[in-house]
Amino acid sequence: MNKISKTAPIGVFDSGLGGLTVVAALDALLPHEDIIYLGDTARVPYGDKSPETVGRFGLENALALLERDVKMIVVACNTVSATALPFIQSELEARGFRVPILGVVDAGIEAIIPRNPRKICVLGTRATIASGAYERGIRAKLPDTETISIPCPILAPIVEDGLANHPIATSAIKHYLTPILDSPPDTLLLGCTHYPLLIDAIRTVLPPSITIVDSSIAIAEKIRETLEKLDLAKIIDTSSGRREFLSTDSPRLFAERAKVFLDGKLSPMKVEEAPCR
Amino acid sequence: MNKISKTAPIGVFDSGLGGLTVVAALDALLPHEDIIYLGDTARVPYGDKSPETVGRFGLENALALLERDVKMIVVACNTVSATALPFIQSELEARGFRVPILGVVDAGIEAIIPRNPRKICVLGTRATIASGAYERGIRAKLPDTETISIPCPILAPIVEDGLANHPIATSAIKHYLTPILDSPPDTLLLGCTHYPLLIDAIRTVLPPSITIVDSSIAIAEKIRETLEKLDLAKIIDTSSGRREFLSTDSPRLFAERAKVFLDGKLSPMKVEEAPCR
Repeated sequence: MNKISKTAPIGVFDSGLGGLTVVAALDALLPHEDIIYLGDTARVPYGDKSPETVGRFGLENALALLERDVKMIVVACNTVSATALPFIQSELEARGFRVPILGVVDAGIEAIIPRNPRKICVLGTRATIASGAYERGIRAKLPDTETISIPCPILAPIVEDGLANHPIATSAIKHYLTPILDSPPDTLLLGCTHYPLLIDAIRTVLPPSITIVDSSIAIAEKIRETLEKLDLAKIIDTSSGRREFLSTDSPRLFAERAKVFLDGKLSPMKVEEAPCR
Repeated sequence: MNKISKTAPIGVFDSGLGGLTVVAALDALLPHEDIIYLGDTARVPYGDKSPETVGRFGLENALALLERDVKMIVVACNTVSATALPFIQSELEARGFRVPILGVVDAGIEAIIPRNPRKICVLGTRATIASGAYERGIRAKLPDTETISIPCPILAPIVEDGLANHPIATSAIKHYLTPILDSPPDTLLLGCTHYPLLIDAIRTVLPPSITIVDSSIAIAEKIRETLEKLDLAKIIDTSSGRREFLSTDSPRLFAERAKVFLDGKLSPMKVEEAPCR
């Protein structure tokens, strides 16, 4: 790959469907850009898996998008961003690819810096929290800020089962947030693309003064900035960009379950199968 | 493969760790038999995936066990048993393998026949329930019995997070069982290897008269019968059989998380990595 084309699509991948919240945010911010989304629904979720396995799957997803000549790789999956971004970057460089790669973890951290928080709580999958990526990133940029990280393994399955507004969601959130209720943080960082759908339930548990940062919106902003900085932004026109969806498991199941994350946006949706090997 | 050896190990596979409940039941019933267990922890869970993907993964797991010369394949995963057992059987036959294959679904159904239930409720993953395998199997053997099937996607994640005895488990069970509380069944069939760990929570929601059938115990009985019938049982001796564990993701994570399912049994555990491709 020599010159990257401005008119090429933005490639976004996630372990499954959660990254569609990033596509929805991008669709609102950069409607004229083309987007190809890959969901590794055959092997989802990644959140309980080892960094080695997550890195291998993430690299395969990135390569599948590069076969479709994307101009940028967006890692919409917090688990991959937290555990394997440097690995994927170096593997792609070794193969001669020079497209920019952005991950939701860095975007989330950058979004909170201007707010100058005193105390941050990060929620994520087991693998994301175990990686320490959020804590390290926050310490590097905001050395005086206290960070507490809480793994919340059953929140993503609750969202996927359409129970985000059910009392089960509230009781799971209460369970996980118990350690911070006595002395709550000023900022809550949602370190999983499923969690924005739980904001209403979270608001019933935490004081209203808390700022909740949604990394899917943060990364859409960062994608725009990066495309402009690298002179890779498509010339703005009034036509809507192409939206393509790839699924490693059944396209029919993908389209059915995508509704939870898209709230009527981007439908009807055409999904193509892209086997994971 | 010509003659199957009596002294060969029994091969058991599952999408992840839930099938360890079958190993524990086998360990109690046939302590002298050797057992090799494969957990496809890199791609777990299967319960929300398509029959095609579940079939492909299941076949790969069976072939990995056959490479280790097992004398029988036990499909400890309800999702694979319900959606893909005939596919795996015919693929193995086409490759010249003649080892017997047993699945938890048939074993669970056979275990309830002598009880002659009037009304059965089956709980399982989305894929297990969508397959209709339990309903078809029950209708064939017990045509006058009414069957209700309920998909319970967040119960397995709750068990894996160690929350089986937490109020979250009870409220999730109440949520799923609401449709049957007014007119409860006489028999509850646990169609997922994670659910035996929820029996205490289920008992707080359902009337005490209900019979709860645990398919991991049912299949251990069926394995013994089949080995005897086919003259494949190892000669009983006083030594304990070998227990080998294979994991497609990190062996360390496997050993850590296996504790939830084994309750102190079979530990310490040696786990070997067996990449899923």
